[in-house]
Amino acid sequence: MPSPVITLTTDFGQHDPFAGIMKGVILRINPEVTIVDISNEIRPYDIREAALTIGMSYEFFPNRSIHVVVVDPGVGSVRRPIMVTTDHHYFIGPDNGVFSAVYAREKGAFQVTHITATHYFLSSKSPTFQARDVFAPAAAYLSRGVHVSKFGDAISDFCSIPLPAPQMTENGVRGEVILIDRFGNSLTNIRRSDIDAIADRPGDANMAILLNGREIPLRGFYAQGPERELSALFNSSGFLEFFVHRGDASSLFQISPGTGVEVLVKR
Amino acid sequence: MPSPVITLTTDFGQHDPFAGIMKGVILRINPEVTIVDISNEIRPYDIREAALTIGMSYEFFPNRSIHVVVVDPGVGSVRRPIMVTTDHHYFIGPDNGVFSAVYAREKGAFQVTHITATHYFLSSKSPTFQARDVFAPAAAYLSRGVHVSKFGDAISDFCSIPLPAPQMTENGVRGEVILIDRFGNSLTNIRRSDIDAIADRPGDANMAILLNGREIPLRGFYAQGPERELSALFNSSGFLEFFVHRGDASSLFQISPGTGVEVLVKR
Amino acid sequence: MPSPVITLTTDFGQHDPFAGIMKGVILRINPEVTIVDISNEIRPYDIREAALTIGMSYEFFPNRSIHVVVVDPGVGSVRRPIMVTTDHHYFIGPDNGVFSAVYAREKGAFQVTHITATHYFLSSKSPTFQARDVFAPAAAYLSRGVHVSKFGDAISDFCSIPLPAPQMTENGVRGEVILIDRFGNSLTNIRRSDIDAIADRPGDANMAILLNGREIPLRGFYAQGPERELSALFNSSGFLEFFVHRGDASSLFQISPGTGVEVLVKR
Repeated sequence: MPSPVITLTTDFGQHDPFAGIMKGVILRINPEVTIVDISNEIRPYDIREAALTIGMSYEFFPNRSIHVVVVDPGVGSVRRPIMVTTDHHYFIGPDNGVFSAVYAREKGAFQVTHITATHYFLSSKSPTFQARDVFAPAAAYLSRGVHVSKFGDAISDFCSIPLPAPQMTENGVRGEVILIDRFGNSLTNIRRSDIDAIADRPGDANMAILLNGREIPLRGFYAQGPERELSALFNSSGFLEFFVHRGDASSLFQISPGTGVEVLVKR
Repeated sequence: MPSPVITLTTDFGQHDPFAGIMKGVILRINPEVTIVDISNEIRPYDIREAALTIGMSYEFFPNRSIHVVVVDPGVGSVRRPIMVTTDHHYFIGPDNGVFSAVYAREKGAFQVTHITATHYFLSSKSPTFQARDVFAPAAAYLSRGVHVSKFGDAISDFCSIPLPAPQMTENGVRGEVILIDRFGNSLTNIRRSDIDAIADRPGDANMAILLNGREIPLRGFYAQGPERELSALFNSSGFLEFFVHRGDASSLFQISPGTGVEVLVKR
Repeated sequence: MPSPVITLTTDFGQHDPFAGIMKGVILRINPEVTIVDISNEIRPYDIREAALTIGMSYEFFPNRSIHVVVVDPGVGSVRRPIMVTTDHHYFIGPDNGVFSAVYAREKGAFQVTHITATHYFLSSKSPTFQARDVFAPAAAYLSRGVHVSKFGDAISDFCSIPLPAPQMTENGVRGEVILIDRFGNSLTNIRRSDIDAIADRPGDANMAILLNGREIPLRGFYAQGPERELSALFNSSGFLEFFVHRGDASSLFQISPGTGVEVLVKR
């Protein structure tokens, strides 16, 4: 039996010991687990960024991985701790929308459980650090083989937040920038498959990509873009992305989450 | 036998390879160990912050964990490398006060050993990277089962730094802010138990919390605090903490380590 | 059999999930591996910094460790994915010079393989994330025991970038600052052995260290340097380094990579 994998996606940062403490709690319960940080640098309280980050990451992890996501401005309030089960993955975190991208990708093929079995919790009276007291122990016991049904009952009124979806237009697709990465590359919510769905020649569509009213040339990979000029490509996940070769597209061209993008498909 | 756990708490940062090199040295000696970063982002040379960080973290790790703490402005000088043994944990680092919070928590139930057994050190002539040459190998050999007594002799004149302790006053407790976390939450050194010790109704004391002469309302958890207003709560470790719901209390209200706090207990 | 070790040295940062995704891909293929971050904070596109970082780190890891280095502004272009084999270590990354310091240290005792065996790649059509699609799977299969020769053919026209080498002068050595660490310590490319090679009394050379025309006193370790004054020492890797005890030499004395240094050996 390989070691089970538990991943962490949080806004706890690297300076404070919070992510480390979660790992300690997990290892006390299951010393055989492999823990991987997806990111502990989600912007504080940014549920949307957490949702997009876990949504673009989880499929690359081994089957039966357990993904703990903690961006939780409502910790201690009525919002529920939940466990999400899909065909191949488990997710544990607050019911505040952090799993919205997972729900969208899994298209109904998942189950949501309200975690209520307090005997799996760390004994603690404080409601301010549920990552330590509830989510970490639940992940650790799940990794030891405790069945999902032991943690609580299934619910159907779980919370989902709207993630910006691209809109089909008369002659193309309209979307927006959703994430900026470390390099300033600006990821949009428009997929190559959105274009192909309306193109005469799928896979080889003749298109114009418009950002702030300007047409941006499409390249095959980063090194094809001239330095200091804005270019576009379809990235490793199939999404349209703006970039400057060896430069920071976001700061050089004032692109940020929410910046509108339009793709015109020429027929 | 589960994998032994070694934790790291250092001021080495994430950019330089120093923490990674320590892990390489550890894995050469004991490939079966699980290594967890508590924090490598302690402020450079800040022994006090290192002491507080390990003090609030170690109890959540498995029994027999080995905690390596390296914030060491005096590396190479006469200050000694030491190993601290408590009932359930081991600690390895410089004798400069980084274990002061451990000493305080363990109330004398610990032993300090001066690490002098050079045959466990990495052969190196330089005194500038003892984390790599002394602390990492000592932790690795300890994790392989080498007995504490093999590393050197017990000492009693180890170094402790003063950590700010709360003072009982005529009608309450006076303390101070000791740490600011990533969210701007401002942790004080006043515990709920300090209040309960002098209250008529322990657990339900009637109190006034004063920061810079202003009374700050007490909440049960973060989401109960109105946005943009300063609130207080007793956090997951039982300490009084100031916060702004979804905001940064430290920068919004100019709170920093050393800011004075007073709790008046009404009888 | 101990778990094989795979290390990561990248410019992916801590915020984005790219390094985490690489770990997911590796663990899908080989769940028994131990993954260690050397640094994911290499400055974006800085091939030279990546080369120096892996060059100063790899020898401290267990034999047969696999070091994945990804700083890759030309990803997707004609530059080749390669695997470097030395007596004790493996390296995987782009053929753009990131292994230049390894080549220099191993003095010809290594082999470079062009990775072309696409059946080991993650099936993906995008050329923008080879770290995920090529380097991570190659490392994982190598860690499972797939022989180097299975990944492609040996090449001899691999790419190396010039790393600044010290120059012997009439009466000493001239070099430069090559890296600044988190503390502001300024590492040069001059080794103690360079001095000893030309000194009358190796190991005890009488020397003058000049930075910007000023003589800088040589100390044995950091705590020997007076605070606020610039000092020099030979560091844990045997290189000349400038520092300020408990201060930031780089910002206090305007030292940066490229700053010239001269050592005059007095006879």
